[in-house]
Amino acid sequence: MPVTSTDLYPVSRLAAVQEATAKAGLDALLLTPSPDLRYVSGYQALPLERLTCLVVPASGESFMMVPRLELPAAQASPAARLGLEFVAWDETDDPYRIAARRLGNVAKVGLADRMWAMSSLRFREVLPGTEQVLAGRVLRELRMRKSPGEVEALREAGRAIDAVHRQVPEFLRAGRTEREVGRDIAEAILAAGHETVDFVIVASGPNGASPHHELSDRVIQAGEPVVVDIGGQLHNGYCSDSTRVYCVGEPPAEFAEYYEVLRRAQDAACAAVRPGVSCESIDAAARSVIEDAGYGERFIHRTGHGIGIETHEEPYIVAGNTEPMEPGFAFSVEPGIYLAGKHGARIEDILVCTEDGGERLNNTTRELVIV
Amino acid sequence: MPVTSTDLYPVSRLAAVQEATAKAGLDALLLTPSPDLRYVSGYQALPLERLTCLVVPASGESFMMVPRLELPAAQASPAARLGLEFVAWDETDDPYRIAARRLGNVAKVGLADRMWAMSSLRFREVLPGTEQVLAGRVLRELRMRKSPGEVEALREAGRAIDAVHRQVPEFLRAGRTEREVGRDIAEAILAAGHETVDFVIVASGPNGASPHHELSDRVIQAGEPVVVDIGGQLHNGYCSDSTRVYCVGEPPAEFAEYYEVLRRAQDAACAAVRPGVSCESIDAAARSVIEDAGYGERFIHRTGHGIGIETHEEPYIVAGNTEPMEPGFAFSVEPGIYLAGKHGARIEDILVCTEDGGERLNNTTRELVIV
Repeated sequence: MPVTSTDLYPVSRLAAVQEATAKAGLDALLLTPSPDLRYVSGYQALPLERLTCLVVPASGESFMMVPRLELPAAQASPAARLGLEFVAWDETDDPYRIAARRLGNVAKVGLADRMWAMSSLRFREVLPGTEQVLAGRVLRELRMRKSPGEVEALREAGRAIDAVHRQVPEFLRAGRTEREVGRDIAEAILAAGHETVDFVIVASGPNGASPHHELSDRVIQAGEPVVVDIGGQLHNGYCSDSTRVYCVGEPPAEFAEYYEVLRRAQDAACAAVRPGVSCESIDAAARSVIEDAGYGERFIHRTGHGIGIETHEEPYIVAGNTEPMEPGFAFSVEPGIYLAGKHGARIEDILVCTEDGGERLNNTTRELVIV
Repeated sequence: MPVTSTDLYPVSRLAAVQEATAKAGLDALLLTPSPDLRYVSGYQALPLERLTCLVVPASGESFMMVPRLELPAAQASPAARLGLEFVAWDETDDPYRIAARRLGNVAKVGLADRMWAMSSLRFREVLPGTEQVLAGRVLRELRMRKSPGEVEALREAGRAIDAVHRQVPEFLRAGRTEREVGRDIAEAILAAGHETVDFVIVASGPNGASPHHELSDRVIQAGEPVVVDIGGQLHNGYCSDSTRVYCVGEPPAEFAEYYEVLRRAQDAACAAVRPGVSCESIDAAARSVIEDAGYGERFIHRTGHGIGIETHEEPYIVAGNTEPMEPGFAFSVEPGIYLAGKHGARIEDILVCTEDGGERLNNTTRELVIV
């Protein structure tokens, strides 16, 4: 059953956010277009130079500054259900001063983590004595714990990106460039039901040794492993992210050897997921397999990141993060092994922590796919 | 002849930016992943929670903070040609403190206009006495004046989005939803050579009266005008943006009447473009035609925005902007008429100011297209 925006962005959330804001000692949150704004209100506002800003005071009535031009869009969005006032401003108004005047005296405000400097500096100007901190302090605690509706939306995203990975063998062949393959994949990501293409990494041969290589005009050669790390965002806001490795013909022997190590490492980390274990212990589960096989220095990044309405959000699966897992945490498990100048590999699934373990939301084969 | 990244992101630009920074009385620019960073360095860095930041001091050596994970991507980017130092940091380092230490005492820094609060607040912490202003103060003067290479890139973007508009009649028909049509258009935007789909507005019937309506599940009906406003970004960073109006069958008489007013208004504004005239006079040229026809209150937004590596950038074609046009200014001319509850229309071309007038970069028919 598809989840609705009412499941994902419930009206009750605003009160929960106000309570958490008060508890954190903040007077208000200022949420410009960003995942923070969408999470709280359901409104996916365009990030534009004209100010849109949801103002959530710790107590009292929330309101949203909206350029008059965007008023119909705001009114048509799920934010309209929240019963808050839309304060429309005209092209010659100063929306920052209007917001500050309505807000009154505030000692400490939380800014959307992704608020642009063009807004944060203007808010500093119109609220000169006010301390600015990140709204993430308040929102991370809520966003990290996914509701059953949110988990279902992530499952849907997982199915969509799995469908794309199943098509990749049709696109990949020697003689094509990474960019050509990437364009086909991008179209398939949209056709599979995503609203946006967030990233398309097609990293062939030596490019596979750079974890965040994206696309280049490099021509893919026979015998080369190709790392394909792709994701997008569904219409409902939830994101997909999955990595698989393909090989155009038979892989080099050295590669085949460490790929099996990687597969065991990724399995070990997935098997370690359950409520109560620390985030860093899941990183350690993958890392120890890779270290024991002698590739420890080739695994140069953390094991994973949280995912929801952002591709990267809390919790991070990294050494030093002692946060205990809870049911509803959703995150990637994506160890990698990288041999600079030669090739590399990474296997990535999204998992959700359940009452008794971890549920993988990506389910295409994790074996090396020979194309 | 396709433009190369050397044309678009010349090595000489860094010195010009340093000079402008000094002239503006700033000690340094701090450029996190954003159009500002791309403009100065050619590096299209992923906007991630891990800090990437190009530090451009008014005098002395620039350097770039780069997460070790992103180092190969930075090294493979056009930024590598600039001869600056990449300061790679590891997962357990504090890159903000490292940057502050290298920067030394600075009184005033310019932040990328789109720097996220998660970075600007950290820079405030590690540079406590330093005033933060927008880097846009310095960069707008450079970014607004397009080089011949940049103009050629915008022409290429114009041709690409024109090719999509020519396909729209195949996608649009009564009985389909805006979202279904929008998905076809998004795929066509990629297939036409864009790297990303930036926005797809398919506003049917009454939705056409909301200038920034995007997509909905509304089923398009016979006899309805549909506003299609679409754009994307080419691989080289330059953006397209064009709006045309289609009608599924014969339009309502009232609509046909004001559509002709709009067409004359858009032509008048395009004809007004030449060096030396103010930006606001181009707005006035469109607005006076619409006002004279009695629709003045139905034209509820400015006439246009600059375009380059951002869809919206300086110069804005709006009342109050007395900036005189110069050859190389690139911007949209997009008046609209909106009848709330009924329908609306907008016609948009990108223009470049030349030595003796304005060159339209979008060239599909501006007549109402009956599908």
